[in-house]
This record gives sequence, structure tokens and C-alpha cells, in this order.
Amino acid sequence: MKPNQIMKHLPHKTIERLSQYRRALLICLDSGKTHIYSHEIARIQHITAVQVRRDLMLIGYTGTLRKGYNVKELIDLIGQIIDATEGINVAIVGMGNLGRALINYFTGKRSHLSIVAGFDINPDKIGNTMSGVPCFGIDEMESVIKRLDIRIGIMTVPGDFAVEVADKLVRAGVKGILNYTPKPVNVPKDVYLEEYDMITSLEKVAFYVKMHEEEA
Amino acid sequence: MKPNQIMKHLPHKTIERLSQYRRALLICLDSGKTHIYSHEIARIQHITAVQVRRDLMLIGYTGTLRKGYNVKELIDLIGQIIDATEGINVAIVGMGNLGRALINYFTGKRSHLSIVAGFDINPDKIGNTMSGVPCFGIDEMESVIKRLDIRIGIMTVPGDFAVEVADKLVRAGVKGILNYTPKPVNVPKDVYLEEYDMITSLEKVAFYVKMHEEEA
Repeated sequence: MKPNQIMKHLPHKTIERLSQYRRALLICLDSGKTHIYSHEIARIQHITAVQVRRDLMLIGYTGTLRKGYNVKELIDLIGQIIDATEGINVAIVGMGNLGRALINYFTGKRSHLSIVAGFDINPDKIGNTMSGVPCFGIDEMESVIKRLDIRIGIMTVPGDFAVEVADKLVRAGVKGILNYTPKPVNVPKDVYLEEYDMITSLEKVAFYVKMHEEEA
Repeated sequence: MKPNQIMKHLPHKTIERLSQYRRALLICLDSGKTHIYSHEIARIQHITAVQVRRDLMLIGYTGTLRKGYNVKELIDLIGQIIDATEGINVAIVGMGNLGRALINYFTGKRSHLSIVAGFDINPDKIGNTMSGVPCFGIDEMESVIKRLDIRIGIMTVPGDFAVEVADKLVRAGVKGILNYTPKPVNVPKDVYLEEYDMITSLEKVAFYVKMHEEEA
């Protein structure tokens, strides 16, 4: 199968894991490692080696028994499967601490994804460059998104603005939204929405800590 | 069953969803809503009403057909199930943009979880209070964590420090770690680890945007 045929049949969770495998593989490559076994990837990701082999078989890659997977080849193949050929422009809406943390975090990490604009309502920020990204006013969103061909919006505004910002992003034509606000939003079917709530993660950790202590 | 017997049998995903239901219910309560139907919760969370009803049955709650669930009662019940009775103290390691974003995000949102300390290596930050949280040096970690009875550590340091910080947190005795660095870490079995990589979320959104465009 060609990469674009493979793509359509990949489960959501496999996409996530492929991204995570690549992240681990890039760290290995940096440290000079040329080959890696499925059980090594599995240990880094806290999953089973069977799971790793199953995911990589889905994208048509098999290693050799003796040496394992070729790190460089596998990074390239995962890129062919999950990355866009042309690169995708991304905007951050909300240039507070979280917005700036994300810019610093992403910058230089993945060449096919570029954060090209930030938006805020604070007049002190508008017109300035923050962490290398120009900041525009929220009311310029629609025109800037179209002009810069931005296709993904990351929302880092306070919860009270979530619904309004999501609507604006959709109207401006983005096709993917990553919502980091504490408020869930609704988008049309042709826009892909990923939501992450930091409180849920912390509450989950707290739940297991509580369980552990009650058992002890 | 008593709450602590119910707890042990809850799937991971149900814990996450209970936290998310509560988040949605708190927003409803704020807006003056007293009752809610499973399909309304489902719509907010982008899941099915059957899923909502199944999760709530697992914690022994059923609404009335005519009025739905009592919002206040359900918030309290979810709290009994997932919250610790005594409250849990939390530390942030890495007081950069992300660390401070998390403090601002959590503060006042959940009374049973308190961020009581931050740690950093920057001498300008150590000894100061940032967003209401005192900042200590990384080398004071073990003693401060013990003194303040901190049981959860949130890691927001650069990836290069991830392994070292996780080890220090474990040695200091925390029982839960939330890892926001780009590097996976290993912890002993009695410590609960939750890892979140922002690049994976963005790559997932980018993948679906790419798919959508190639289909169009």
C-alpha cells in the first residue's frame, strides 16, 4: 500500500503512538544510536513490545531480528505517514504563559509545523513579536489566518472566551483545533478537534495517589 | 458498595471522564442549571449518552427520567469518589512559562488539590513567590517535599532535566508524577505516572488536517 492508503486505516491510538515513537527515536538518534529493538521502544513508552511491533507492521515496517529497527529509516517512514508534505501553519490564540510556553516548546522541534502567528486582546502584546512569533489582535484573526494560510489553531485563552474563539477560528477556515482551555467547545464535522484539560490529568494522578494510600 | 469499594473497580477512562463530567457540571451549576440529562452531558463531552449513563451507573448514580440528574448531587458524589478526603499537596518543578501557566490555571479550581511549592534553578526566582506559590531551589526539593507533605510533582522542566527531576521526586517520596516534559521517564511501580506530550497532540491534529485535505 502507498502511504496515503495506509493512513486511512490507522487507528487514532496508533497515530498518537507513532508520534511518540518518533519522539523517542529522535532522542535515540541524538545519542548516536543507529538501531533499536521493539522492546526498547516499548520500555521508553511504557507499553508492550507486541504493541510496538503491531503498530509498525500497520505502517509496513519490519526490522531485522539481529539488529532491530533502523532508527533513521523509521523516523523517515513515520514522517511520510503522519506529516503533511507541504508543512502546516499554526496559530496560538492567547499569548499568556501557556501560549508562550507552547511556542518555546514547539520551536525548532518539527519542521513541518510552524507557529506563524499569535493572537491576544492585550494592546501591550499586539504588534510585538513574542518568542519569535508576531502577535496580532483577536479582531484581525480572520484576515491574518487567511493571509498566512493557517490551518490549525491552538486555544490558550481563559475558559470564558473558548466558545467565541473556536467560532472565530472555524469561520476563518482552520481545519484543526487544539483546545487547552478548561471549557469544551463544539466545531463542525469537517474540523478536527482535540481537547486537553490539565485538571483532568492532575485529578487522575490524585485519584491513584489516594487509592494507593488507602490500600497501604 | 461504599465509595472506596466502588473506586477500586473503576476503569482508567471512567476516572478521566468523571473528572470531565464534574468540570462540565460545575460550569452548569455556575449558570444556574439544577438538573441535567445524560444526553446534555454527552453533547458537552463529545461522547454518547449511553457512555455517560454507564459511567454514572458504575458509581451508583441514577437520575430521574423526568428531570435528569441533580447537578449539585452529582458533583458531590463524583467528589466523594475521586477526591482525597484530606486534600493533596502538589509541587511544580520548573517555574517557567508552563509552570506558571499551570499555577494560574489550577488556583482556586479544586479545593482538595493545592500547589504549595515551586522549584527552579534560576537564582532570580528562588526565594520569591510567583503567582502566589513560593519558589525553592532544586537542591532543596527533598527536604521541602517532606516538610510540606507534598505527594504529587508536576514536571515542567526542559527535557534534558526530566530523568534527574523524576528521580529526585521519587526519592523525596511523592506518589504521583505528571510529566509535561518532552522526555518519557521511568518510575517505580508504587508511583503513579501520567505523561503528556504537547507535540503528540499537535501532530495528531495535523495528521487529520492532512487526511482531510487529501480527501477533499
